[in-house]
Amino acid sequence: MQSETASIIIIGNEILSGKTQDLNIQYIAKELALYGIALKEVRIIPDVEEGIIKVVNDLRKQYNYVFTTGGIGPTHDDITAESIAKAFEDEYILHPEAIKLLKNYVKNIKSEFKDSYLKMAYMPKSSVALFNRETGAPGFKIENVFVMAGVPFIMRAMFEEAKKYFKEALPILAKTIDVYIEEGALAADFSRLQKKYSSIEMGSYPFKDDEGKWGTTLSLRGNDSVELDKAMDELKQIINKLSC
Amino acid sequence: MQSETASIIIIGNEILSGKTQDLNIQYIAKELALYGIALKEVRIIPDVEEGIIKVVNDLRKQYNYVFTTGGIGPTHDDITAESIAKAFEDEYILHPEAIKLLKNYVKNIKSEFKDSYLKMAYMPKSSVALFNRETGAPGFKIENVFVMAGVPFIMRAMFEEAKKYFKEALPILAKTIDVYIEEGALAADFSRLQKKYSSIEMGSYPFKDDEGKWGTTLSLRGNDSVELDKAMDELKQIINKLSC
Repeated sequence: MQSETASIIIIGNEILSGKTQDLNIQYIAKELALYGIALKEVRIIPDVEEGIIKVVNDLRKQYNYVFTTGGIGPTHDDITAESIAKAFEDEYILHPEAIKLLKNYVKNIKSEFKDSYLKMAYMPKSSVALFNRETGAPGFKIENVFVMAGVPFIMRAMFEEAKKYFKEALPILAKTIDVYIEEGALAADFSRLQKKYSSIEMGSYPFKDDEGKWGTTLSLRGNDSVELDKAMDELKQIINKLSC
Repeated sequence: MQSETASIIIIGNEILSGKTQDLNIQYIAKELALYGIALKEVRIIPDVEEGIIKVVNDLRKQYNYVFTTGGIGPTHDDITAESIAKAFEDEYILHPEAIKLLKNYVKNIKSEFKDSYLKMAYMPKSSVALFNRETGAPGFKIENVFVMAGVPFIMRAMFEEAKKYFKEALPILAKTIDVYIEEGALAADFSRLQKKYSSIEMGSYPFKDDEGKWGTTLSLRGNDSVELDKAMDELKQIINKLSC
């Protein structure tokens, strides 16, 4: 499967402490697949400058796109934006474009601009602000790194803007099938099928249904729809044979 | 905050593709806090041997405990156990202790042992098997690395066994308070409080309630309960002042 690649960096003590259930990884992963971008790695790290700089600089060289969530806001624990400026050895400034987006937002909701809002308009000098239709405070893009909020509905607003920068590509398609056959009984045939269709990524996952009955979910993924259909047809034949 | 440290490695294309919502990170994070163990990093990586070996070897040197979830099972994409044997330059064997646990489990559920079950008893030679009361197929521990299934209820069964190896320590305590004050308005006072109580980890997180009203969750964490109470009392005074 040939695709562009991406990684996510979740910056946030609230995820590492267990206080908050992450909901951003699955959302971003599914959205990226529609653009043919394969999510290859996720890191969850604390709000610590040194660590953020290191991980951002490692991952932006390895993947076509890097997405960060969390740690952009007005309080002492919000150090993501400044850390990323440092990672790029860029100035951390009150960004004219961000101020403009914020002022427009405040005007559109018929509210009044307060100086305290300016805290939300600091970002690296060479970044492009990402409009946030939900709360006005923008995210930003610097080279291939997209810096977004951690709160899911705000992250999604910023991600909508990020999409404008994705290259058009074939989406990654997925087909799954649930069977009441034990994973072990399928293993040999499934492995042979994977070898035959090397462009398709195949996985199997046990499940227990509401009635406590065991089964296996078989998943096929790839961006060649013809190969995917052929592999699924053969898989169904295998299943029929095993079910007899 | 002085604590033992841990990291989690989630091994699984099903999480990276967005097919499955991870539920293990938050569970493990909360459980570790009860033992005074601070989760410092999470990696989510694909089912690729080279990557698993590298990440396991990096993290087991950095943290007191490493937990892996996913990729132990009977199919071609289940390569975690063998990869970990390679990371430790250990033999990958049909493990006598694992066979014993499996046979006992099968006997206890009054079922019959099949040779195909033996696939579930391979693990590194120097590992200790972790009993799994849910499905019988054991996880394992090798030095400070705990290797568990990805399916949440099976992971939890293995984690119960892993706990026996944790050192006793003061739990990490958390106190949170929700206020209807804008994050920005709290920032200066909250930052001063954090400087005063350096052993307490403080975070603030915006939320929107069911009626669309904005607020901020303030979170304090630490293992010194006296300091935590003092910091919370002062935080409440700050909030009262700001609410007037």
